[in-house]
Amino acid sequence: MNSDTILLAHGGGGLLMRELVEGLIVPGLSNPALDRLDDSAIVKAKGNSLAMTTDSYVVSPLFFPGGDIGKLAVCGTINDLSVAGARPLYLTLSFIIEEGLPTDTLRKVLQSISETASEAGVQIVTGDTKVVDRGKADKLFINTSGVGEIIEGVDISAANAKPGSHVIVNGPMGDHGIAVISKREGIEFKTPVTSDVAALWGLIERVLDVCPEVQTMKDATRGGLAAVLNEVASSSRAGIVVREKDIPVRDAVRGACDLFGYDPLYVANEGKVVIICPAERSDAVLKAMCAHPLGREATIIGEVTNERIGRVLMETNIGGQRIVDMPYGEQLPRIC
Amino acid sequence: MNSDTILLAHGGGGLLMRELVEGLIVPGLSNPALDRLDDSAIVKAKGNSLAMTTDSYVVSPLFFPGGDIGKLAVCGTINDLSVAGARPLYLTLSFIIEEGLPTDTLRKVLQSISETASEAGVQIVTGDTKVVDRGKADKLFINTSGVGEIIEGVDISAANAKPGSHVIVNGPMGDHGIAVISKREGIEFKTPVTSDVAALWGLIERVLDVCPEVQTMKDATRGGLAAVLNEVASSSRAGIVVREKDIPVRDAVRGACDLFGYDPLYVANEGKVVIICPAERSDAVLKAMCAHPLGREATIIGEVTNERIGRVLMETNIGGQRIVDMPYGEQLPRIC
Repeated sequence: MNSDTILLAHGGGGLLMRELVEGLIVPGLSNPALDRLDDSAIVKAKGNSLAMTTDSYVVSPLFFPGGDIGKLAVCGTINDLSVAGARPLYLTLSFIIEEGLPTDTLRKVLQSISETASEAGVQIVTGDTKVVDRGKADKLFINTSGVGEIIEGVDISAANAKPGSHVIVNGPMGDHGIAVISKREGIEFKTPVTSDVAALWGLIERVLDVCPEVQTMKDATRGGLAAVLNEVASSSRAGIVVREKDIPVRDAVRGACDLFGYDPLYVANEGKVVIICPAERSDAVLKAMCAHPLGREATIIGEVTNERIGRVLMETNIGGQRIVDMPYGEQLPRIC
Repeated sequence: MNSDTILLAHGGGGLLMRELVEGLIVPGLSNPALDRLDDSAIVKAKGNSLAMTTDSYVVSPLFFPGGDIGKLAVCGTINDLSVAGARPLYLTLSFIIEEGLPTDTLRKVLQSISETASEAGVQIVTGDTKVVDRGKADKLFINTSGVGEIIEGVDISAANAKPGSHVIVNGPMGDHGIAVISKREGIEFKTPVTSDVAALWGLIERVLDVCPEVQTMKDATRGGLAAVLNEVASSSRAGIVVREKDIPVRDAVRGACDLFGYDPLYVANEGKVVIICPAERSDAVLKAMCAHPLGREATIIGEVTNERIGRVLMETNIGGQRIVDMPYGEQLPRIC
């Protein structure tokens, strides 16, 4: 850990965050469950495997096209359990509220939490509320932590991707980040961009039904697709090649990225999963995904290789190849 | 929920907080585990009973005599599991960091987290880090959530206290709140007051060994002893009578309370548990507690009755009786 102070960029899902987590946070706490650094920890309780996860949400603004901090907090934690191959069961809910928050704002967020949890079939079983003085927080922060039951026979990890396997995503990249930043900056587009925030368990359950051999699943949140692919390449000691033409990005998102100077591969999603499975099963996975409302635009975007270990390469639309680097710091602060 | 905005007092562990939780938060999320409103939720996973809990910590200052936000975050969540009769197993750890926090501050907090978890035998299995811009948080907030295994044969709840049972505490009241507020206000006492922050599982395990019939256990945090006793009287539809002369309070804490205008019964503790057990088992419980370093000053402070249902009465030192009310709002903001 080189920096003397914590920077916004340390929360960005990139190299700086990895330095903070791996250099400072994890060493003193080391244990096998933590050291995997996957989206959920796999633990044993009375002989059964459970997944546990936690996330704090600090998105600004609280309400954005397609969602709000409440929906985000429920979906994000459901998704972290789901990509570990765990059926989400129970969530905890903790609020840090800035004094002066309109009660009606909290009421709307709670309504959204309630609807999202109910639709996804998870129960919010316990909670906590803290209030801090004006100016000591930004309206509302939410932590959700969750427990899920690992589906028997699956073994999913960022470290499990094997050369030859296919890389699949369930739809276009970058919607969430652009929706939030557009709202925050007060910019309107002719075609409005809506966050993709969604609970992915229903989709992932179908994938695991047809393909329990899935090697890796990650939701592409902070740092976007680029961060996920780099993490997998690094953890699995493999290379990954993706094809630019096959990576879905909406025109409106591409336009917004051009305007803001972002690369859609680095923009956060909140309803997108990257799935790596044996090549011979990818058609079955794709078919299952396309039959689900959250997977209609699913597509195979590339392969795992045994060349350029730890690297992600992209075959560009003009026939070249470029390295897709791990993001360094923070492209879009406070998008989740 | 009457107020149009959220007030500091809504986080104080008193009537206003109950109004917020029971009037606004719980109704939309209702399920049997949540509706108990105990310190932990009891849930089933693959047929086994687990306890789940969550707490966010916003204490100011981050370091205080006897502890820091890291130790507090680990102990507080361990204690919420313990008082549910659950052996604490796994914790999650989530940071919200204000940009500009010295890395060294985070390092010290992590060191404290690591030592506290290690001593208590719990594993921190997964985590999350968010960074918000300067002025949008106050240095560092921490959420810890936890999972524990319910000890077989115990059934502990704020609703289980029975008339005739004894009320026991493990030591003096009010140390934590006074230690934090003294540090925050920069006031030094001749006899310094040190926070009682401690992980209580070791003590509670011994109590459950000798008395699995414990009816109620609560750690007396926000709102202090008064809030706990009132919650139990209300949930158990019973009366509670305590004796002022038997409630331990250190002289230094009493002096500080006189100075600040506080009542020690309402001041937060972070290493104190209120135990209610059948009268015929209270000697055995007391003996087990006194044999443990965290229970040396344990004492029986009163009884559960079937009079003045829902009320807490105190027999005063001068021979009178007074009602110990549920606190309304916030006596000491941000003490946990």
